[in-house]
Amino acid sequence: MNENFPDELVARLAAAKDASRVTARLTSAEKADVLNAIADALIAATPRIVAANADDLARGVVDNIGDGLLDRLRLDETRIANLAAAVRDVAKLPDPVGQVIGGHRLPNGVALEQVRVPFGVVGAIYEARPNVTVDIAALALRSGNAVLLRGGSAARSSNTELVAVMREALATAGVTADAIGSVDDFGREGARALMKGRGFIDVLVPRGSAALIETVVTESTVPVIETGAGNVHIVLDASAPLEWARDIVANAKIQRPSVCNAVETVLVHRDAAERLIPTVVEHLQRGGVTVHGDARVQQLAAGVVAASDADWSTEYLGLDIAMKVVDTLDDALAHIREFSTGHTESIITTDLHNSERFLAEVDSAVVMVNASTRFTDGGEFGFGAEVGISTQKLHARGPMGLSELTSTKWLARGAGQVRA
Amino acid sequence: MNENFPDELVARLAAAKDASRVTARLTSAEKADVLNAIADALIAATPRIVAANADDLARGVVDNIGDGLLDRLRLDETRIANLAAAVRDVAKLPDPVGQVIGGHRLPNGVALEQVRVPFGVVGAIYEARPNVTVDIAALALRSGNAVLLRGGSAARSSNTELVAVMREALATAGVTADAIGSVDDFGREGARALMKGRGFIDVLVPRGSAALIETVVTESTVPVIETGAGNVHIVLDASAPLEWARDIVANAKIQRPSVCNAVETVLVHRDAAERLIPTVVEHLQRGGVTVHGDARVQQLAAGVVAASDADWSTEYLGLDIAMKVVDTLDDALAHIREFSTGHTESIITTDLHNSERFLAEVDSAVVMVNASTRFTDGGEFGFGAEVGISTQKLHARGPMGLSELTSTKWLARGAGQVRA
Repeated sequence: MNENFPDELVARLAAAKDASRVTARLTSAEKADVLNAIADALIAATPRIVAANADDLARGVVDNIGDGLLDRLRLDETRIANLAAAVRDVAKLPDPVGQVIGGHRLPNGVALEQVRVPFGVVGAIYEARPNVTVDIAALALRSGNAVLLRGGSAARSSNTELVAVMREALATAGVTADAIGSVDDFGREGARALMKGRGFIDVLVPRGSAALIETVVTESTVPVIETGAGNVHIVLDASAPLEWARDIVANAKIQRPSVCNAVETVLVHRDAAERLIPTVVEHLQRGGVTVHGDARVQQLAAGVVAASDADWSTEYLGLDIAMKVVDTLDDALAHIREFSTGHTESIITTDLHNSERFLAEVDSAVVMVNASTRFTDGGEFGFGAEVGISTQKLHARGPMGLSELTSTKWLARGAGQVRA
Repeated sequence: MNENFPDELVARLAAAKDASRVTARLTSAEKADVLNAIADALIAATPRIVAANADDLARGVVDNIGDGLLDRLRLDETRIANLAAAVRDVAKLPDPVGQVIGGHRLPNGVALEQVRVPFGVVGAIYEARPNVTVDIAALALRSGNAVLLRGGSAARSSNTELVAVMREALATAGVTADAIGSVDDFGREGARALMKGRGFIDVLVPRGSAALIETVVTESTVPVIETGAGNVHIVLDASAPLEWARDIVANAKIQRPSVCNAVETVLVHRDAAERLIPTVVEHLQRGGVTVHGDARVQQLAAGVVAASDADWSTEYLGLDIAMKVVDTLDDALAHIREFSTGHTESIITTDLHNSERFLAEVDSAVVMVNASTRFTDGGEFGFGAEVGISTQKLHARGPMGLSELTSTKWLARGAGQVRA
């Protein structure tokens, strides 16, 4: 780390690094016990957490952050119980640490083994919802890592209290409290130290808006796992069955519009436009969706708003959708190449040639045929945990499980061998 | 990419991205054919390459770069033949692309499959030896990637010619020439564009000095695979057999001192100091090694230079070695924690408790017991290729094979499934 940070901040980073040597050696059973102790402590501390949260909510009202954000910020008895239950679920996940991924003997007899090991210190920079504080800490700890957190200022009091409760539980359980730390009290310098903390922070996970993620990716000299932005497309091929097209588009948009795997743009092959668009649009509109269409879509369905160029690159994260008629599958693929964020795309088709082309040529973390884009999710994929969805190609791509919070190490056992 | 680069430079990046869609879809046999055509072309172009290399050598003499660098820069008929042979070897490597790594069916019947895919465009920033130009291009192409190169200015003419020859071979073989490109003609702007080329460059591999790697890691907003620096340690435990200690230390230092897996510091347990140090030091000295020792080492062997604090963090990459007596295994582990670059460490011991502690607690890419650190090598590990040795924890750690030049993608095949 080449930059000058306050000694106390550097000490915080060093404490996390030291703690990571402790967490790396905890057994799976010990980590489960500690996580269950943290869950108990969160329940027991409900009044303290709710009181701290009230400060944040009051500040949110004064700052006029809006009802949506206020709701995401709120912690009550039920939500804290859910948080604790989520920690217990993480405690039950299979421990990736120590897993032997491969190995072989060299011709000279040296035995090679590649095993999963914790990263060391996981840094997390995130916004808004205080439950991320507990989620990330639990996932990092289950995979043998120490964690350093930097939460959003809107949830400052809640995060401080949650971290304090978790640290007390760690200390009571006989594990160093520094296994879970926060740099919130250092303000912007804290975030900067996580981003520049090479030698202390082994990997950085940003969670939040596209702007936050962009900043972290740009500023950080620590390796980053980029999660997030999903400008997700569904292509309705010439052969798309009407019911699949209608139901998958509606599900992908309406079931939970605020998340990254919700569809944002639908591309319809011109040979199917007349057959599909009226029904698909009507079904969306009945679900409260505003359709932003090009001229050809507007001709085929009523109530369609004219799409502007900006619509093709907009991640609405709400009840809006863009729709366009394309002349060929090639045009659809070119549109996706230009505007996709590489998260998830799906094609609805019964044409084998086109489905195979789509799977081969679309360069996204998850490429689907005849399924809702909402399936791109760690829980749906059966990973049991929500570590995030990576949109980069390095290390992890797509929904991440607990093993994506680990690195590997080679062990070599010899008996005096030297290289010839 | 937020920065303003010349249009011609952006066009170069875009051409590589376009070419990567072509290389991604080449079959394994097609890629092998192209690589063999490149090998043929290199042999056929020997006079052109030697002539271009003569320019670099002449400039090197004027610039007084020294005999060592001049030798590394030199290309003659034999070296070009070796380069071509290496390309043919890469053509024979198993193709990682398309490999199915895992998969399962979701409860609703959606079939999930995780497959290896090329990264897309691999950027490489490197120094000195022009053979890296051909090596990296061949490895990138074998794994289905396009490549954009930025070589050292000392080898500018040679690199330009090598790239031209490879591009001609690609075009003749009916594959786009842009599968192999260079940004050397854009000078520093070219390197900067690779580092800031998000959306065009998928991964960046720096090869060269610690300073070069540090610059790339610090400046790049593209994900980097950090390779390199090895401040490698060997611990001689109290129980270390004399012959193993002597032979492994000598092999790890002398067999090829200029490489990153050569040992730089030996830590000797005090209970074995008297028994081991005289022989180990004498053996090293007979091999031409200067031993930089602490006071206790100097007491036990003649001709030992006094070590200064700087010696513990020096990667000599030559016939020098640092040596220190430690009181306990804990002290050795603490020293390694402070000074290791996380590349390779080895312990010589017959004590099972100590060997297991060492394997568990040393946080390096490769941790060895009773073997020479020179085994940390893609070729020795049986990967058949020298992609580099990663010292970071993300994506790849330790010697990298061809599959480390690939990413993955999830394919999901459904029949109308939507999320409940």
